[in-house]
Amino acid sequence: MQIQKEKIAVIGAGSWGTALSLVLADNDHEVRLWGHNRDQISEINATHMNKKYLPEIILPETIVGYDSLEEVLKEVNTIILAVPTKAIREVIKKMIPFLENPLTIVHVSKGIEPDTLMRISEMIEDEMPESLLQDVVVLSGPSHAEEVSLRQPTTVTVSSKSMEAAERVQDLFINQHFRVYTNPDIIGVEVGGALKNIIALAAGITDGLGYGDNAKAALITRGLAEIARLGTKMGASPLTFSGLTGIGDLIVTSTSVHSRNWRAGNLLGKGQNLDEVLENMGMVVEGVRTTKAAYQLAEKYGVKMPITTALYNVLFNHAKPKDEVDLLMTRVKTHEMEDLANVLVEKGLE
Amino acid sequence: MQIQKEKIAVIGAGSWGTALSLVLADNDHEVRLWGHNRDQISEINATHMNKKYLPEIILPETIVGYDSLEEVLKEVNTIILAVPTKAIREVIKKMIPFLENPLTIVHVSKGIEPDTLMRISEMIEDEMPESLLQDVVVLSGPSHAEEVSLRQPTTVTVSSKSMEAAERVQDLFINQHFRVYTNPDIIGVEVGGALKNIIALAAGITDGLGYGDNAKAALITRGLAEIARLGTKMGASPLTFSGLTGIGDLIVTSTSVHSRNWRAGNLLGKGQNLDEVLENMGMVVEGVRTTKAAYQLAEKYGVKMPITTALYNVLFNHAKPKDEVDLLMTRVKTHEMEDLANVLVEKGLE
Repeated sequence: MQIQKEKIAVIGAGSWGTALSLVLADNDHEVRLWGHNRDQISEINATHMNKKYLPEIILPETIVGYDSLEEVLKEVNTIILAVPTKAIREVIKKMIPFLENPLTIVHVSKGIEPDTLMRISEMIEDEMPESLLQDVVVLSGPSHAEEVSLRQPTTVTVSSKSMEAAERVQDLFINQHFRVYTNPDIIGVEVGGALKNIIALAAGITDGLGYGDNAKAALITRGLAEIARLGTKMGASPLTFSGLTGIGDLIVTSTSVHSRNWRAGNLLGKGQNLDEVLENMGMVVEGVRTTKAAYQLAEKYGVKMPITTALYNVLFNHAKPKDEVDLLMTRVKTHEMEDLANVLVEKGLE
Repeated sequence: MQIQKEKIAVIGAGSWGTALSLVLADNDHEVRLWGHNRDQISEINATHMNKKYLPEIILPETIVGYDSLEEVLKEVNTIILAVPTKAIREVIKKMIPFLENPLTIVHVSKGIEPDTLMRISEMIEDEMPESLLQDVVVLSGPSHAEEVSLRQPTTVTVSSKSMEAAERVQDLFINQHFRVYTNPDIIGVEVGGALKNIIALAAGITDGLGYGDNAKAALITRGLAEIARLGTKMGASPLTFSGLTGIGDLIVTSTSVHSRNWRAGNLLGKGQNLDEVLENMGMVVEGVRTTKAAYQLAEKYGVKMPITTALYNVLFNHAKPKDEVDLLMTRVKTHEMEDLANVLVEKGLE
């Protein structure tokens, strides 16, 4: 495949932004990696390592670190936005003065904004002047940054309102180790990626409580059903939730000790409260904010989301994890299809 | 809930038959557990332990072991058939002379018979005289025997051509720890339970090769898609594959070191050949026979099953695991929906 080489700015030098920089550098693009921490950027340029986030990895020397937004954005047509959901609006506000031409923003974050209930592509459209925004593309899927940076086989999905834009981003990233698929359903891709963090938190809780793989499998199965119920109401295709950005990402996040949402849930299950957990993690736990947003979405769309509700009660209403999990496991409903059929019935597919 | 107490014969004293005996005994049924190994049965009656299969567990004293089929079947209306797929026909042939009245057979095995391509309920109908068979019910779902015997929360599904029979079996088993759901789609429940062992073997191989969670999540996601493609062609509802006996069981079997199919795959990935693996396991690995059956089913129904085909080549055609996995990961298809949409398109749902 002939790849057009490009100048690309990666905004956010956490583990995911750094791993994606490595993929782009492997594809011979000119990669500029921006981070707000000057010491970290100096370390990247001096040692070609990002020790805090990817301690084992030597980065390609063609990745250049920047701590100036003005410089990193010069003559760039494509931005990879790899910052926590919470920081997206602020970072965009800071970028705008330095943008000259309309450009493509590829976001790789997973969340829904509480209160506005916007997906991330909607937040970006909301902040960016129309004249400066050519396309928004989301890249999502089952992809621990650590494994991507070790060049282990990984598959992800890109989606956009413009399939042409999605295919252009697919071409930028795809290589032998990092397989990129397109999916036209941006709502499903963004909702699945965001809401799986809720189920990962809940899976961490059941593990922390000492329950086994049987309970966790039941939780993940039902979690997928409730995500799909909400997502289809929001306009997504139910099929997307059976794909890489749905069940694929849900599995990897709920069953792996790499996952920070799972780890946070695990600490909650072991008896820590939310403040202690967030302090101990020292990293952003997207699932906490997403739980609040999903709880609000469930109310707005009138969808039953028992796992989201249980987790909301644990995080924000001082409910005991064990009480909530036991309640979930002994729900009186006994016909499995009632749970599942709603997804398609609501979509008018059956 | 009022449970009618019953005499129940559990045929097969492996880990799953023994764990299910414990559930039934917890529900105050009169449980008779049959095994062909006289020493094992003496041990169960003397020590209330089944040390080979569930070494940690003290069984309820009300479980009585039998090594005589004639005695265990006296005055019994319900049989739980918990033997490997390979042994089902032979065991039924031996039982028939001792059966007097029509009875319900609940099978808890997961497989498809190679060559005949029958599901297990079909094999049972094929062997049993019509006059002696009231109903066949399948019990399936994400359920490691070890965890069930520790009374950890577990959810399973029962299905039958007769929903009345399924609900009767639901009542026999359901309790606080062991949650039982009904699903009318017996084809989907049996096919999902059988074919997930293929994906578990393949997941073990990728782990054995040293690939990470990203690769495994991709494999499981695509594995579910190919199971659903075949299953819907066979007459199943696509919804069942999103439920406990589909994705639920697939997750638990593919991500847990408890799973013998995963363990067998893991040894294959590490370089052992099939004969060495089977010898080292010392237990039945259902996925090996099921791979052969699924390969034949894919041909019969004209369904593409790339993972099944790759595994078939590894198991029976001396293909190298790494070559087959790398081939799977670099398939040229780049539109995710092509993979997923087939499921519903073929079912006429979209």
